[in-house]
Amino acid sequence: MIILGLDPGLGTTGWGVIRAEGNRLSHLANGRLKTDSAAPLARRLAHLDTMLAALIADHGPQAAAVEEVFVNANPQSTLKLGQARGVVLLAVARGGIDPGEYAARLVKKAVVGVGNAEKAQVHAMVQRLLPGVKIDGPDAADALAVAICHAHHLASSRRMP
Amino acid sequence: MIILGLDPGLGTTGWGVIRAEGNRLSHLANGRLKTDSAAPLARRLAHLDTMLAALIADHGPQAAAVEEVFVNANPQSTLKLGQARGVVLLAVARGGIDPGEYAARLVKKAVVGVGNAEKAQVHAMVQRLLPGVKIDGPDAADALAVAICHAHHLASSRRMP
Repeated sequence: MIILGLDPGLGTTGWGVIRAEGNRLSHLANGRLKTDSAAPLARRLAHLDTMLAALIADHGPQAAAVEEVFVNANPQSTLKLGQARGVVLLAVARGGIDPGEYAARLVKKAVVGVGNAEKAQVHAMVQRLLPGVKIDGPDAADALAVAICHAHHLASSRRMP
Repeated sequence: MIILGLDPGLGTTGWGVIRAEGNRLSHLANGRLKTDSAAPLARRLAHLDTMLAALIADHGPQAAAVEEVFVNANPQSTLKLGQARGVVLLAVARGGIDPGEYAARLVKKAVVGVGNAEKAQVHAMVQRLLPGVKIDGPDAADALAVAICHAHHLASSRRMP
């Protein structure tokens, strides 16, 4: 099964694609989708949407998961993130997939074993779980982590029907 | 010129379509797009997207404006609203339109004359500015108000190039 993980953001959306065969995971691709901060909001969202559609068409995932955004103390940041996240969820749904949604704490617990792990620990564990992976920065690392978390969740729901 | 106004929300998105000829405004249509609160978030966003695409195809607006959402004290509400607003802005941008964005305070000032007008005053002024209109509830009233605000803005930018 091919699983797409996404870490939404208006400026940078991290993405990662992995293959899960039983308990074996392997890396397929990862990267970042960037929008131009000088462009009007609606055009940035449209650009993000176009890139997401291409990504989904390229990799044909059968499952997808989206990190639950960190609800910021700054409401304007939360709003920006929310707008990008809406477009990300829509793109996945349009691809016929019901996305999993996981809080950052759950993702860390699934990947590192503890909910309050540091970013660097998550990065190192992703590297270890997906041998040979070259990670395109912290947003892509988070996206791969959410894909791994979804793979574990899907595997354990198959074990406990 | 046909102008679409939108008041985004995950549960209910208000919409209103008006025609502006110079300073003369007339009402074309208004209503509400509702999503099922029992459905998963991504499906609600996909449903909203489908309804918006149909609305834009039906009315063929040349301009559109979206109310800036009220940034709530509750970050979870802000996030929900942001997700719906991202989908609304995307739908407009996909229709080839650069949407105007107006804070609620500016919309009230444009329609009623004061930025702190009550909802009932906005409703009454929309009724007066668009003779014969039957307004489909408060979200549609807000959407018509933002369309009127955009019409004023476009008219005054034509006068002062």
